[in-house]
Amino acid sequence: MTELNVCLSPSLIPLFEVEDYIVVIIDIFRATSSICYGIDNGAEAIIPVSQVEECVAYQGKYPHYLLAAERDGKVVTGFDFGNSPFSYTEEKVAGKTVVLTTTNGTHALHLSRNAKKVVIGSFLNLTSICNWLKTQNDNILLVCAGWKNNFNLEDTLFAGAVVDQLKGGGFVLDDAAIASNDLYQIAKSDLDTYLKKTSHSERLKKLGIEADIAFCLQVDITTAIPVLEGEKLVKLV
Amino acid sequence: MTELNVCLSPSLIPLFEVEDYIVVIIDIFRATSSICYGIDNGAEAIIPVSQVEECVAYQGKYPHYLLAAERDGKVVTGFDFGNSPFSYTEEKVAGKTVVLTTTNGTHALHLSRNAKKVVIGSFLNLTSICNWLKTQNDNILLVCAGWKNNFNLEDTLFAGAVVDQLKGGGFVLDDAAIASNDLYQIAKSDLDTYLKKTSHSERLKKLGIEADIAFCLQVDITTAIPVLEGEKLVKLV
Repeated sequence: MTELNVCLSPSLIPLFEVEDYIVVIIDIFRATSSICYGIDNGAEAIIPVSQVEECVAYQGKYPHYLLAAERDGKVVTGFDFGNSPFSYTEEKVAGKTVVLTTTNGTHALHLSRNAKKVVIGSFLNLTSICNWLKTQNDNILLVCAGWKNNFNLEDTLFAGAVVDQLKGGGFVLDDAAIASNDLYQIAKSDLDTYLKKTSHSERLKKLGIEADIAFCLQVDITTAIPVLEGEKLVKLV
Repeated sequence: MTELNVCLSPSLIPLFEVEDYIVVIIDIFRATSSICYGIDNGAEAIIPVSQVEECVAYQGKYPHYLLAAERDGKVVTGFDFGNSPFSYTEEKVAGKTVVLTTTNGTHALHLSRNAKKVVIGSFLNLTSICNWLKTQNDNILLVCAGWKNNFNLEDTLFAGAVVDQLKGGGFVLDDAAIASNDLYQIAKSDLDTYLKKTSHSERLKKLGIEADIAFCLQVDITTAIPVLEGEKLVKLV
């Protein structure tokens, strides 16, 4: 029997033997959405780091890398762009390596690095990643990056969307997978309206990134599956 | 603005400044249900410990204390009773102090001990504890004891039941409170059937405690609110 489990916060990753799982990292607003979009648009690699300083260190070694860093929702001075998915268009990233600063997503990736495989999920590549997961015949752990180590709804809803596509495929679901799927059933007809209930949504609105949010909630506009190889996220082939 | 937050696992307690909250500890199957029932039936105090050995240590110092300890669902030899709520009847516990061995519940209590107040919730005293919380005009943190530090549905559903009674009272809900309440809306018409979906439920069934589970899902059969004073849980007056 293969397991389909959901880890609702990076703080709970140590409860799982990640070596036994394929891990899907989820950070819907906005890291994993931007990563899926960038890789789909031909970025050679995306390197997630947690600190702006690490990002700068890459620039020293690899001057041709593009650097993406934000603080308080604004592009840090001297950087090429921020975390908006609109920065990851084909014309900007095709053939390029991007160093992306993302606190929650990088933290979740780091704690999952010993998994059988680490792939990146978002609503953008939902069906593509689900179809691939169905062929793996392996335990799956959906890791919600959350917000500062705490639970958040947008990542949980995406986990529920994956469970919705995989359930019935012989997986054993844990309680978090059941809950995520049930929450997704409530929200799926209008994710945006459902998420407007959250305080996080208020916070994001203040950052002026409503267009980003709407973009990140689009379903199945990409097919590439980013996979972790060493420190780099590249297209799974 | 007062906050109504839900902590979905003891592992997430460090994310909250518990000093700023009244904490409600939730361990539906079966610790907090048994505690509510025992205190309502006149137990002078219930002392939760995590190890059978600690329980034994109390016996040395206070031979008149009743000791409750289970391993693998069976009463440990030499102990007065286990964790079944049926052990906490008036005739067994009135006027007595009981030392209760409970791993998940004790862990959550220990991590919450610096809160403004720590009270014990279960479906048995749901409305009573909600009515009291409404009068406190303070931040509230509902702590799910979970199962070995991971998320579980039964504790989350109870958190949702509390949110359901308190929402609209001027509280700001975090994402976990919103999710718990939405899950409760799905489950509330038949909690038992909803929980049968969980693997935890299968595990509990194997322990032969279906009668305990049915007992723990009864709503509002008690009114006492157990509160932590030092190491002891006593009746809030």
